[in-house]
Amino acid sequence: MKNEWLGTIWLTPDNQAVQILDQRHLPHRIEVMTLRTLDDACLAITDMLVRGAGLIGNTAAYGLWLAARQQADLPPQAFVDAMRAAADRLKATRPTASNLAWAVERQIAALSAAGPVDAATGAALLRRVADELAASEREAGRCIGEYGKTLIEELAARRPGHVVNILTHCNAGKLAFVDYGSALAPVYAAHAAGLPVHVWVDETRPRNQGAQLTAWELARHHVPHTLISDNAGGHLMQHSLTDMVIVGADRVTRRGDTANKIGTYLKALAAYDNNVPFYVALPVSTFDPELDDGVAEIPIEERDGEEVRWVNGLTADGQIGSVRICPAETPARNWAFDVTPARLITGFICERGICRATEVAILEMLR
Amino acid sequence: MKNEWLGTIWLTPDNQAVQILDQRHLPHRIEVMTLRTLDDACLAITDMLVRGAGLIGNTAAYGLWLAARQQADLPPQAFVDAMRAAADRLKATRPTASNLAWAVERQIAALSAAGPVDAATGAALLRRVADELAASEREAGRCIGEYGKTLIEELAARRPGHVVNILTHCNAGKLAFVDYGSALAPVYAAHAAGLPVHVWVDETRPRNQGAQLTAWELARHHVPHTLISDNAGGHLMQHSLTDMVIVGADRVTRRGDTANKIGTYLKALAAYDNNVPFYVALPVSTFDPELDDGVAEIPIEERDGEEVRWVNGLTADGQIGSVRICPAETPARNWAFDVTPARLITGFICERGICRATEVAILEMLR
Repeated sequence: MKNEWLGTIWLTPDNQAVQILDQRHLPHRIEVMTLRTLDDACLAITDMLVRGAGLIGNTAAYGLWLAARQQADLPPQAFVDAMRAAADRLKATRPTASNLAWAVERQIAALSAAGPVDAATGAALLRRVADELAASEREAGRCIGEYGKTLIEELAARRPGHVVNILTHCNAGKLAFVDYGSALAPVYAAHAAGLPVHVWVDETRPRNQGAQLTAWELARHHVPHTLISDNAGGHLMQHSLTDMVIVGADRVTRRGDTANKIGTYLKALAAYDNNVPFYVALPVSTFDPELDDGVAEIPIEERDGEEVRWVNGLTADGQIGSVRICPAETPARNWAFDVTPARLITGFICERGICRATEVAILEMLR
Repeated sequence: MKNEWLGTIWLTPDNQAVQILDQRHLPHRIEVMTLRTLDDACLAITDMLVRGAGLIGNTAAYGLWLAARQQADLPPQAFVDAMRAAADRLKATRPTASNLAWAVERQIAALSAAGPVDAATGAALLRRVADELAASEREAGRCIGEYGKTLIEELAARRPGHVVNILTHCNAGKLAFVDYGSALAPVYAAHAAGLPVHVWVDETRPRNQGAQLTAWELARHHVPHTLISDNAGGHLMQHSLTDMVIVGADRVTRRGDTANKIGTYLKALAAYDNNVPFYVALPVSTFDPELDDGVAEIPIEERDGEEVRWVNGLTADGQIGSVRICPAETPARNWAFDVTPARLITGFICERGICRATEVAILEMLR
């Protein structure tokens, strides 16, 4: 396996299609998938070839460009209508994520602002906006890393000679964005600056994004880390083995209630109970200021129970396979996200700085 | 698969050995293992052929009997010394569990009380005490079920026509004891009485005792249940989908701090945060009144990280197998238990009744 970073999404050399790193079989198999149509993009998001708040937004943005290229013969009004329909399809692929809707709406707004355009012009515009979204997200990740690094520096300064132990849940790293990531960006920045960091990696059932993705990308970047079951975080915090928690987010309301991978709320409760700082790292595009009460208002995606009943991995003889962990007839439910109330969150690490989890601070950040 | 209950531990028909249901490959393969020596008993506990607070106590008690039968030629004092050494070996197999030490110490106390005895007499005595421990534990489970049923009746009466949703973590059912169980005993009693109950079964990583054992035994007893990832409990409680939590315990201090399967503490935090009653069901033998502060004083067993890195189950073609869920070189840590502070516990359901999680109430219960 080459040790260079592949990236998560890029254009083909001829600029005719989009390619993605297919994350379904990571870390065991590295495969690249080419997306040529709107259907391809929708499937890549729904079946989680791509996942992560930022990356599904970028995939949707390029997906709208692919949709536009399929409509080359439409007159302006029909073209815009087709793009609106395509945008609705993309937004429906994952209901909880805020960035997805945000990215697609940015595309539609740019189209509307351009006035009546033919399909070729529209496609070029959508491609340019998608490129801009990807570039600004990359820069956001870099800034999140720099701001978050200051928190790690403070912790390192408080106990000279000690490693700063950071717990994270799911994958909000480079694999969840076009680069840098959100929750892992401060870790990479701190590690690059020579600060002693170690990451506790929650395996993140049922899809094991921690075990499969976070462990893999941290290893590729030589960041010390240890895999734990999702159940272990409370014990770690009770015994002062965790100095801070940093997680990503899929949607954050204006008062700071945060939807993130199922189980995040449990870690936030444990952090609060043990006075461990609990930070959410996110680009400001993940805020949804339309919503207030996260538990009541954020739609929570429910996925197939088979994801709970079967576990994927590599068999002892090196094959990708899966095992059923329960009796054949056991029913299962599978909510993909939960909501962490703002009262449990120490602060948000954004590309514009760090703010408290209050409506005043968040709206100030978003101005 | 026959639908009758096999039991977890029993004597061979000739009364010369102990047989156990080997729980390592449940629910996919039902195997019985015969234990003939102290080594067999220690291995069965260490390698988790048997597990669960009560069952490891019973296995250890019969293990001491097996040890005695291996020492048939020793004079009285040497015999007692050999039994003490055997007891120490058994106690070291799983350091967190209280019942294990309690059962073995009951055996040694009975031997001491009998005065100098030859090995044959001593073995017969140990066998009788082991039988008594098993019988009294079975009766304890029955009573825990009856007391716990009253709590479920109250919840059912509060919302007529609604199913009472009970969340449990790990397996504290019939498979964890000689019969009935602790956490599941009230569920069985309520179900048998016609009360509408449904159990949310935490899969219980890393060894998946919920998915493999609790789901299996609930299905065999026709109790409605649904498998969820360990991460899901907080979401369920935020959305009023859980009416109560009942878990078992491995060791409880005199003030009520409770060691149970890793992750229990996280569920207790979520229950407390959402005003969901959180009960611990246990025979009084699981209390360890010598200890006070559970987080500081209860020894927490750490097991092999391979249990986190590999997941066991049944492959699509019906073979028992395992898959690695992380990169080949990922390090993992694996603490088996955590401690839930008494302040998060609504009450204890014991064979003598239900009590609050306070030192006064617990010591009163133990008198």
